[in-house]
Amino acid sequence: MIDRLAIIGVGLIGGSLALALKQAGAVGHVVGCGRNQQSLEKGIELGIIDSYQISVSDAVKAADIVVVAVPLGAMRRVFEQIAGAITDQAVITDVGSAKASVVEVAMECLGDRVGQFVPGHPVAGTEKSGVEAGFASLYQNKRVILTPLDSTDQGAIETIDKMWRQCGASIEYLSVQHHDKVLAATSHLPHMLAYALVNFLSGLNEHDEIFKYASGGFRDFTRIASSDPVMWRDVCISNGDALLALIEQYKNELDQVSAAIQNQDAGRLLELFGNAKSERDSLVGNC
Amino acid sequence: MIDRLAIIGVGLIGGSLALALKQAGAVGHVVGCGRNQQSLEKGIELGIIDSYQISVSDAVKAADIVVVAVPLGAMRRVFEQIAGAITDQAVITDVGSAKASVVEVAMECLGDRVGQFVPGHPVAGTEKSGVEAGFASLYQNKRVILTPLDSTDQGAIETIDKMWRQCGASIEYLSVQHHDKVLAATSHLPHMLAYALVNFLSGLNEHDEIFKYASGGFRDFTRIASSDPVMWRDVCISNGDALLALIEQYKNELDQVSAAIQNQDAGRLLELFGNAKSERDSLVGNC
Repeated sequence: MIDRLAIIGVGLIGGSLALALKQAGAVGHVVGCGRNQQSLEKGIELGIIDSYQISVSDAVKAADIVVVAVPLGAMRRVFEQIAGAITDQAVITDVGSAKASVVEVAMECLGDRVGQFVPGHPVAGTEKSGVEAGFASLYQNKRVILTPLDSTDQGAIETIDKMWRQCGASIEYLSVQHHDKVLAATSHLPHMLAYALVNFLSGLNEHDEIFKYASGGFRDFTRIASSDPVMWRDVCISNGDALLALIEQYKNELDQVSAAIQNQDAGRLLELFGNAKSERDSLVGNC
Repeated sequence: MIDRLAIIGVGLIGGSLALALKQAGAVGHVVGCGRNQQSLEKGIELGIIDSYQISVSDAVKAADIVVVAVPLGAMRRVFEQIAGAITDQAVITDVGSAKASVVEVAMECLGDRVGQFVPGHPVAGTEKSGVEAGFASLYQNKRVILTPLDSTDQGAIETIDKMWRQCGASIEYLSVQHHDKVLAATSHLPHMLAYALVNFLSGLNEHDEIFKYASGGFRDFTRIASSDPVMWRDVCISNGDALLALIEQYKNELDQVSAAIQNQDAGRLLELFGNAKSERDSLVGNC
């Protein structure tokens, strides 16, 4: 049982975590923290948090677990305020989609308390954002990746591992660098492609008709282009090098498709699409 | 009431049309035609067709309406056999995702019967294919685009317009060229991007982990990469020029994202993603 949980940033991710833990009977008091008082009031109204603080240091001071669920670009501001306010027993985790930049911030801000910090990333979400978007089952059968350092306290890891399992998630361990490389491919790159596609189409002359004739496939394909722009701006800044390399490589892959079309190479096109289909079909069984 | 409907190619699209018309009580006898006898037997077993023929000319000979629902690359073979076999009253339509190539084939094969042909494209589908994938509600609230020529018989247009309305679809009229340009952007390009993404990721060293950590967003984004490779091979051959131009332009759009990441231009990234999000959010209300 977590007696007192502090959620810094009560949006889709932080709010859903609070709801899931409450539903599991795994938490006593949840204190929310954020800069938007109206949103925090909404969190109380929706039963997501039990109280709130505007100041991070007030929110975390008696907490057993502190979950930092703010965009990557706001991590430093939050960690600076956590450092001097938590107890020796408190465990801190985060939910950032890129881990190297958060670990760097945590090491700088937490000093000799850095062992209390367990870097984490729940691989779950929707294209919606904000406190109203939260729901208790978001993490059911989803993966949470933890990327502890050599210096991370073993008890702290176990605490965060257990917290996420109580939300229905399974836990995986990766190194910080490996996480950032894999997620750049599986999550960050697709978001860039979707954002670029919607922008590209919206700039065409036939813009209105294009969206008019959009099919269900198009709607699914571009769903992630409705994701929170602030979050993704920060992912790009935090994991830019990995992402830039992948975008360039992806363009080469597109060139292969173009070459096959240009050459009217029916056999090659069938090979390209057949390979993608079988990879994707086998994936559906796995996730 | 359509007394006798011939469906050439009883897959997802043709099969769903038959089911929808049967459910609406709008058709008497449905004769299926295809090269795979087992699949046609399955169509009868599932109540999708009432009888079948292996020969196209046998299938169409007493039909009131002939629907050609084969991949674009098989259109010529089918239209060649239709030409001499149909009655003067029969109306022919197709469901091809690109229209110029079908119209060209129809003009060559049908000769002075070309006025009986109404080129069509139901903007509906799933990533599944084959007769078992058909379902009666596929066209409910979907758009069907008809691209008649100046020479197309007005009565024939009305017949096909009514047929699709009875399936729950709304009908739009576009010129052949306009259709192919708009659909290249809204459908053909996204399919290429999805196929290329899956192929790209499957070629990376971290392949297994990438698919392991794939989130729901990734699954949605790549759904269309499970689409029928033969169909998409033929779309690429049929509408290659429009598609090639769009792929090149899309790469330029990606370069804008890369430049903003490279320059760590937070303002520009927020603008790019914010614009895409608002375009996409407004789209969801429209389709």
